[in-house]
Amino acid sequence: MFEKKLKPVAPDHMKIQDRFWKEYMELIRNHVIPYQWEALNDRIENAEPSYCIQNFRVAAGLEKGTFQGMVFQDSDVYKWLEAVAYSLMWHPDEELEKTADETIELIGKAQQPDGYLDTYYIINGLEKRFTNLMDHHELYCLGHMTEAAVAYYKATGKRRFLDIAIGYADCVYDHLGMEDGKIPGYPGHEVAEMALCALHDITKDEKHLKLAKYFIDQRGQQPLFFDQECEKNGNKCFWDDTYMQKQYYQAGKPVRDQDKAEGHAVRAVYLYSGMAEVAARTEDQELFAACEKLWENIVNRQMYVTGAIGATEHGEAFTFDYDLPNDTVYGETCAAIGLIFFARRMFEITKDGKYADVMERALYNGVISGMSLDGKSFFYVNPLEVVPEACEKDYHKRHVKPVRQKWFGCACCPPNIARLLSSLAGYAFEENEHELYVNLYTGGVLNTRKNGRENQITFETDYPWNGQVKITIENQENTEFTLALRIPGWCSSCSLKINGEEVEAVPEKGYVLLNKVWKNEDNILLEMDMPVRLVEANPKVREDIGKAVVMRGPLVYCLEEADNGPQLQQIYLKEEPKFCTEFQPELLKGVVTIKAEGKRVSSHGWEGEGLYRTYTGKQFEDAELKFIPYYAWTNRTPGEMAVWVRV
Amino acid sequence: MFEKKLKPVAPDHMKIQDRFWKEYMELIRNHVIPYQWEALNDRIENAEPSYCIQNFRVAAGLEKGTFQGMVFQDSDVYKWLEAVAYSLMWHPDEELEKTADETIELIGKAQQPDGYLDTYYIINGLEKRFTNLMDHHELYCLGHMTEAAVAYYKATGKRRFLDIAIGYADCVYDHLGMEDGKIPGYPGHEVAEMALCALHDITKDEKHLKLAKYFIDQRGQQPLFFDQECEKNGNKCFWDDTYMQKQYYQAGKPVRDQDKAEGHAVRAVYLYSGMAEVAARTEDQELFAACEKLWENIVNRQMYVTGAIGATEHGEAFTFDYDLPNDTVYGETCAAIGLIFFARRMFEITKDGKYADVMERALYNGVISGMSLDGKSFFYVNPLEVVPEACEKDYHKRHVKPVRQKWFGCACCPPNIARLLSSLAGYAFEENEHELYVNLYTGGVLNTRKNGRENQITFETDYPWNGQVKITIENQENTEFTLALRIPGWCSSCSLKINGEEVEAVPEKGYVLLNKVWKNEDNILLEMDMPVRLVEANPKVREDIGKAVVMRGPLVYCLEEADNGPQLQQIYLKEEPKFCTEFQPELLKGVVTIKAEGKRVSSHGWEGEGLYRTYTGKQFEDAELKFIPYYAWTNRTPGEMAVWVRV
Ligand SMILES: [Zn+2]
Ligand SMILES: [Zn+2]
Repeated sequence: MFEKKLKPVAPDHMKIQDRFWKEYMELIRNHVIPYQWEALNDRIENAEPSYCIQNFRVAAGLEKGTFQGMVFQDSDVYKWLEAVAYSLMWHPDEELEKTADETIELIGKAQQPDGYLDTYYIINGLEKRFTNLMDHHELYCLGHMTEAAVAYYKATGKRRFLDIAIGYADCVYDHLGMEDGKIPGYPGHEVAEMALCALHDITKDEKHLKLAKYFIDQRGQQPLFFDQECEKNGNKCFWDDTYMQKQYYQAGKPVRDQDKAEGHAVRAVYLYSGMAEVAARTEDQELFAACEKLWENIVNRQMYVTGAIGATEHGEAFTFDYDLPNDTVYGETCAAIGLIFFARRMFEITKDGKYADVMERALYNGVISGMSLDGKSFFYVNPLEVVPEACEKDYHKRHVKPVRQKWFGCACCPPNIARLLSSLAGYAFEENEHELYVNLYTGGVLNTRKNGRENQITFETDYPWNGQVKITIENQENTEFTLALRIPGWCSSCSLKINGEEVEAVPEKGYVLLNKVWKNEDNILLEMDMPVRLVEANPKVREDIGKAVVMRGPLVYCLEEADNGPQLQQIYLKEEPKFCTEFQPELLKGVVTIKAEGKRVSSHGWEGEGLYRTYTGKQFEDAELKFIPYYAWTNRTPGEMAVWVRV
Repeated sequence: MFEKKLKPVAPDHMKIQDRFWKEYMELIRNHVIPYQWEALNDRIENAEPSYCIQNFRVAAGLEKGTFQGMVFQDSDVYKWLEAVAYSLMWHPDEELEKTADETIELIGKAQQPDGYLDTYYIINGLEKRFTNLMDHHELYCLGHMTEAAVAYYKATGKRRFLDIAIGYADCVYDHLGMEDGKIPGYPGHEVAEMALCALHDITKDEKHLKLAKYFIDQRGQQPLFFDQECEKNGNKCFWDDTYMQKQYYQAGKPVRDQDKAEGHAVRAVYLYSGMAEVAARTEDQELFAACEKLWENIVNRQMYVTGAIGATEHGEAFTFDYDLPNDTVYGETCAAIGLIFFARRMFEITKDGKYADVMERALYNGVISGMSLDGKSFFYVNPLEVVPEACEKDYHKRHVKPVRQKWFGCACCPPNIARLLSSLAGYAFEENEHELYVNLYTGGVLNTRKNGRENQITFETDYPWNGQVKITIENQENTEFTLALRIPGWCSSCSLKINGEEVEAVPEKGYVLLNKVWKNEDNILLEMDMPVRLVEANPKVREDIGKAVVMRGPLVYCLEEADNGPQLQQIYLKEEPKFCTEFQPELLKGVVTIKAEGKRVSSHGWEGEGLYRTYTGKQFEDAELKFIPYYAWTNRTPGEMAVWVRV
């Protein structure tokens, strides 16, 4: 049947312990969450204030003042609360929970009697609400509020925040829709669609699913609501003068007719995630088919090798098939995260490892590249090729930064990283009563109930630095269930032993399905060969022709000026180069580096001035190249960086 | 001594007859000049009106109305009159001259009693004049008026226009300067500097040279005039928020301290031309040294192989050394023309062929690429690599057009092409009483007075299609003078015969100097070998690494989709490819095409979907490549184009 077949494992069921992810999660817990709390309260010195909490205080009548900040400023506290909720699941913290509870009370005080809750309109005049759904983010705030409220309910069992969200959702339901007297609108920035589905899982209230489905079904129908809204309320659509027009919002045609990812990349993948949720709940094959087409378009035509999406800064948007410039890319951290959201939902419906492959690709590369190794600075834009001077002096690269930026004021990406990594267990493991799917290999201890019996499963691994994973099952009673181990798309050779005995490991849609009665102390040893490999792009990708990427396991590698000097464009890999890997514990918090035989275009004869001369043939000098994992770039002296290397 | 040693040959002294340039000049005369006249008078159907002539009628009190169009709209009629002047020199035309005279009368009627003449301020209120020299182009209009007036005086001997220009120049002299009570300003858009020098050549009035020198000397001095002007008059500088700041106007520091070409490219080369003029007239070694540094910076660090300059659309500006992106380039036609202006002035001071080399490079490539072969459409931007879909869908390439645009309304480039090509003889030949320098090879008959004696020199050549030039001298009396024949930088082998006898041709600073007593019917045969050659760029140029350009003689060649199919990025030249040239009289008004052995990256295995796969090594399929001259691209079915080809 057509439905979700798996659910994410809750963060409190998996104690992540490996050095790779544990480190990230502790950074989020110890640094990012407390720092953001200070930011939300305007207590960061020398930073532009957020005004987020202040807006709620004004809206609640606790302070006098005006609305300040971006129209979507409310969403910042919701994203923070969502990250807090996940963090509380795997690391209880009374004080943090108290702060969160108080914040939720404040949010509740701002809520209007009819459930409405957007401080911009509460402060500026409620008569104006729902007059600019296209650009004013009321429904975006509803979406993030709801996601956070659901997470907080799951984490603490407390209903207060959930009830606030239900109140706002019901208010929106009363005002928006195709019925007489309602506004036939939908979100300009999607996210409410998937959030309402999550809410429906808990409330089982048909209204919540109905509202999500309505947002999906009505989007892009003729006559276009956003055109009508502009005309009625005198709004102006900035994107009408561009190639994208209303497809900037994925609202230029019905979603079932969309087969190319277009417009603002974060909005797009949030929408597609919502479409997958609604499709699964309503057995809507046609809607799911649209999701599949959009998925294929992204991963086969518009996705960078790092999992980054959104090729242009203009509209933070997709451009067109095979257009993947490495130096002017946008590749917003949030968009790679949104791609993971989409991937997980497609996976839950299909159990197909191709979706998990993309989750892994984005997570290990284009997502965590967004945060510095100390958790203190962040990228919005994740380029695959950087020349610092160009970022400064070429206006069209001004969005590309050669170093991560301190996180101040309005900021979408850092809290998005926080909520993703705090709930990592749910991406690594998905399950149902009879099956446990292992999507990402991470060390730790998982408690899972299968066929009514408790099982504790221990994962020991040094992934992504090597491909060995040791799994031990502990249970009081023998338990039959399927353990599905993902064999990543990058892995071309692996071996599998159960209790020391070799087992044939033939993956089916990316997973080796081990169905048996598991006994206490059963153990599994999965060994995935992890050689350095070169990857090439489709020759339709103009920017990557004649180049390759060095990869190892799930990791994309890159050249940095710190290791290889400047003028990285002069560097070539030799034909069939020898690679040499080394784990360097002191470097970049511990990474496997790759040395490779390379060569550099000779500068002989160019010592004087000059730009052009008669071609003298291919002239190179030998060069030893050193690659580091892409995610860790620019954590040392800033300089040039390149992912794609000439071959 | 430090001064100009040569002067351009006047267009009426050279009857250009070869099929290459004659064709262009006739297009200008028969099509561009009449079309522009209609445009200036708002008589082009479906085109936005120019309002240029109408503004003069309103300013002259002949009509009621407001000022319309750009603040520099006046300059359009001046550029037209300049082209008309040159055209009249080599092709007298009573009716055209009558139209020009009437137009000059109209301009004169708009002139104010004190000489002031800018219709924007005459119409909008003279009390506001000289309050925004930074952006309001009053002095730019003075410059173009003066250049046109000088040309018209030389063409017709009529003083009316010259006197108008003198009146405006004197008015500006009275109001601008460092003396008490004057405004210490200078042009935001340069051109008046060189124009005033040309005026001084005729008037010998020291004021005119003094004003030019003042504009040069004061520019960029602290405190910055434009800052003061903004503060005083409440103007806002758009560029202060960019990397360039006041260097957008080349006004961020004294011109003698400038050693990198920066800011708006057209303004820059117009300024440098003016600097060279002033340096030559005032024996200012320091100023000339600045010109040399700026020249070297451009040609050795910031010039495309086509002679295009201005690497970015943002500010139509230079970016930084070795930054020469082929697909996002601006390369405005006017900027390449301005580079020729600068080159000619440097050449006149130094007699160094390196300047003529750049004149030739820009003229045959980046300038004439700006006009379609039928003279009806024009490029502002001259890219070296185009994918039409990217121009439509990538906002950062929106300035790049895959086809030339019809010329409507406000338009700087088309009239600039018109005035350059109408006066081509002055670039091809420069002379003094004892010397004739042949810079560009063009067929025709030149009348020149040398040592007091008339000589007629006939040039027969099929340049740039082959390198043979036959020169015949006719005179009544034997005449001693130096005939300086340029051996272009691209030419590595040539032979020279005088009256059938082989002469050693050893160029000195790019010229073979033939000093002798020339007798009637003396003839010279210069044969420059013109093999196809490959040219490479300095390996510091990121965009050109691993690539080469096909050139033949002065011409840059390119690949077009029309000949080679799409996906040009997949094309490589073979190592030491065989080239095959053919003159195709029916193609593109007659061009030599080049066929070459090439190869194309194999798409084997990519038939299905997909973006990335394990690198399979270099796999090519043979491909015969066909190159056409760059200037002639997109005169057939629009499609992809590439100048730099992988090797
Ligand atoms: Zn973001
Ligand atoms: Zn122009």
